[in-house]
Amino acid sequence: MTKLIKPQTLKGFRDFLPEAAMKRQYVIDIIRKTFELYGFEPIETPALEYAETLLGKYGEEADKFLYLFKDRGDRNVGLRYDQTVPLARVVAQYPDIPKPFKRYQIQPVWRAENPQRGRFREFLQCDADIVGDNFAPIANAEILSLFWAIFKKLGFKSFKIIVNSRTLLYYVIKESFGQDTKQLITDHIFLAITRVIDKLSKIGEEGVLKELSSKLVSKGFPKINIERLIDSINSMKVKTYKDLEPIDKNLYYSLQMTIENFNVPEEAIKFDPTLARGLDYYTGIIFEGIDASYQSSLGGGGRYDKLIGQFTGSSVNAIGFAIGFDRTLEASTKLNLLPTAATVTKILITIVENWENTFPLALNLATKLRNSSINTELYLNPQEKLDKQLKYADKKGIPYVAIIGPNEVKNNTVTLKNLTTGTQQNIPQKDLPNVLKQA
Amino acid sequence: MTKLIKPQTLKGFRDFLPEAAMKRQYVIDIIRKTFELYGFEPIETPALEYAETLLGKYGEEADKFLYLFKDRGDRNVGLRYDQTVPLARVVAQYPDIPKPFKRYQIQPVWRAENPQRGRFREFLQCDADIVGDNFAPIANAEILSLFWAIFKKLGFKSFKIIVNSRTLLYYVIKESFGQDTKQLITDHIFLAITRVIDKLSKIGEEGVLKELSSKLVSKGFPKINIERLIDSINSMKVKTYKDLEPIDKNLYYSLQMTIENFNVPEEAIKFDPTLARGLDYYTGIIFEGIDASYQSSLGGGGRYDKLIGQFTGSSVNAIGFAIGFDRTLEASTKLNLLPTAATVTKILITIVENWENTFPLALNLATKLRNSSINTELYLNPQEKLDKQLKYADKKGIPYVAIIGPNEVKNNTVTLKNLTTGTQQNIPQKDLPNVLKQA
Repeated sequence: MTKLIKPQTLKGFRDFLPEAAMKRQYVIDIIRKTFELYGFEPIETPALEYAETLLGKYGEEADKFLYLFKDRGDRNVGLRYDQTVPLARVVAQYPDIPKPFKRYQIQPVWRAENPQRGRFREFLQCDADIVGDNFAPIANAEILSLFWAIFKKLGFKSFKIIVNSRTLLYYVIKESFGQDTKQLITDHIFLAITRVIDKLSKIGEEGVLKELSSKLVSKGFPKINIERLIDSINSMKVKTYKDLEPIDKNLYYSLQMTIENFNVPEEAIKFDPTLARGLDYYTGIIFEGIDASYQSSLGGGGRYDKLIGQFTGSSVNAIGFAIGFDRTLEASTKLNLLPTAATVTKILITIVENWENTFPLALNLATKLRNSSINTELYLNPQEKLDKQLKYADKKGIPYVAIIGPNEVKNNTVTLKNLTTGTQQNIPQKDLPNVLKQA
Repeated sequence: MTKLIKPQTLKGFRDFLPEAAMKRQYVIDIIRKTFELYGFEPIETPALEYAETLLGKYGEEADKFLYLFKDRGDRNVGLRYDQTVPLARVVAQYPDIPKPFKRYQIQPVWRAENPQRGRFREFLQCDADIVGDNFAPIANAEILSLFWAIFKKLGFKSFKIIVNSRTLLYYVIKESFGQDTKQLITDHIFLAITRVIDKLSKIGEEGVLKELSSKLVSKGFPKINIERLIDSINSMKVKTYKDLEPIDKNLYYSLQMTIENFNVPEEAIKFDPTLARGLDYYTGIIFEGIDASYQSSLGGGGRYDKLIGQFTGSSVNAIGFAIGFDRTLEASTKLNLLPTAATVTKILITIVENWENTFPLALNLATKLRNSSINTELYLNPQEKLDKQLKYADKKGIPYVAIIGPNEVKNNTVTLKNLTTGTQQNIPQKDLPNVLKQA
């Protein structure tokens, strides 16, 4: 006998047993249908990409979390880290795809981050993107309304989208630092500043001021300008989206269409000038979905008009979002939005060890129910006591059990037990499909 | 500007663009529904496993095709190679799972084989397995009937399952070699012999005799016994499953139930004593699905009562199969079993650049249709000529187009163009959802 192998999953990786897997499928189905309702079409890309496709797209920090290795052909390869970079590659690789290209993608991604509550090394992403649009506000509005529609269809009642714009942030930062220091604001510095501003709600004005000063004063930025930046951002707390018209026309039109034409409730859209988002590739509108009942972001996205150009050489407009599937599932569970049934199986047919008699009838009955499109499990161990078979059904949450004993054989009947109510009835075998369909 | 990155997929890996991805989803949905009809429930396992979980399960040859690497924590890990070994691990890791455990799993697997026609390095597997049954024939029969039902539901008319038994093969081989050489037949030799026998239909009796001799004579097996083995196998060509009763009772009962109680047509099940199957872990019934219209196996499986014991230490019965998804899709395409529509989008709403006038109406109309559950694409580039927007719909295979021009605005109507027939009608905007639902 060979040495026993310890059955274990890798840190940050998960198995989904039936009840969990079915709940996941329920949420995926709603997301998929809503994507298709909005005219988005599926694509799939490989789990493995050339390493150079992935590197340098997400930011320095993120590159460290890529699963990279050499394959058996000595190629440098990496596991999918998100679905946006593979989309960019696809758009460049197949120039004949009709534009605008509205695609969705629901596949796992891998990140070698340190696992923590709600963060895993393998997790599902659900993305929708529009590539090759030429009028930003309408594509922005369609993406925002799709993002909102998914959470509405899942049953969320207090889902909100926080929006901001990288263009606006860039403008405010440049203005705040005045003529003298404007030229110091490289892309790198800009992204560093946005990441600190992003923490405003967490660490407060004092904290942001302190962190920005320690990063920037030594680089030649006067402290007074840093204070001015915080004031500028705070002065932008707008009351309704209409107040955005003089501040950022593009953002204003986007929100106007979202609310007035795509019927997203005005209270579901909230402008927040401190929202910055982590990834480097965003260039315009950025947004994040939150729900009052849940502490973390449920997903987010933005416009990235320059990413695809890294493959094609010429810029291609694009906007999209990813739903954080695990968090959405966790929030849905907390809000009791998921089906309570633990199984999609409707009935268990019991069998008793008596080949010449009841046994084949149980098999025939299973066939009949399946031919009537009723999800039917046949118990497979005829040596097990009936009692244990009933317990099995109960443990799995199967709502009905059918029993064919000697009496039932004589009368061509079946005993149908409802495990939810505990009641039972004896009915002709041929009536079982209809009785179950009406149950 | 940074260096352009060449957009390319790795050898043996594939992108699925919308039309292909939708056809895949269509087939997956049928497979999933049939699994659930038979009372099987989904699980998901991680893409990465500890290398020791994977190594030594599939056979020496297969181990060479595993994608193995060291992760950032210096662990030896590997990509999922099939779904049976992860299932075995799951069963050992979660002893509380109610048995018999009927699970299905639909996830990609990775094999670093040399890509060839119909073979890829990443491909989808659709598995159904029963773990912990205690009466082989009924579980065997249920698995065979499920395997058959899937292809029936996909529309295959000449799908057949070829069956054999490793137990029977082992018995025949032992008997053929007589008392003297019986003890020479180690597991290793047995598997080597079965792999040669598997080629009987391809290389003929002469070929098999030659190959077996070159492998075995030097090891002490007399040539005459090798000839006797081939004769024994040939002598087993049975006419109906009933002829199996004296040869292999277990197999006989399995097929009897499949045909008589689960209503699989007798002509869909064919016993073939030369079928051997490649993987090492099979212990009982083995089978493969074929269709007259297609040259390769569409999937296969068998009983593997000893695999789970490598994790638990005590043997746990199990049987299952994997559908070769790519081949099934290819055969379905060849047989015209797939939907002809290139998209699930029902209508494209065109827009023209005229913000104050038709533009918001187009958006409102999209919202109205989506609220009526009609898959609706809104064209996003208002600067594009109407003609080009129609061509876009046509290229994507969207059957209907809605146009709102100045006249339509005046009369609250919309022009609905049927791209399949080329006809068009002018109808009130409010009637559009109902007209499309009846179309």
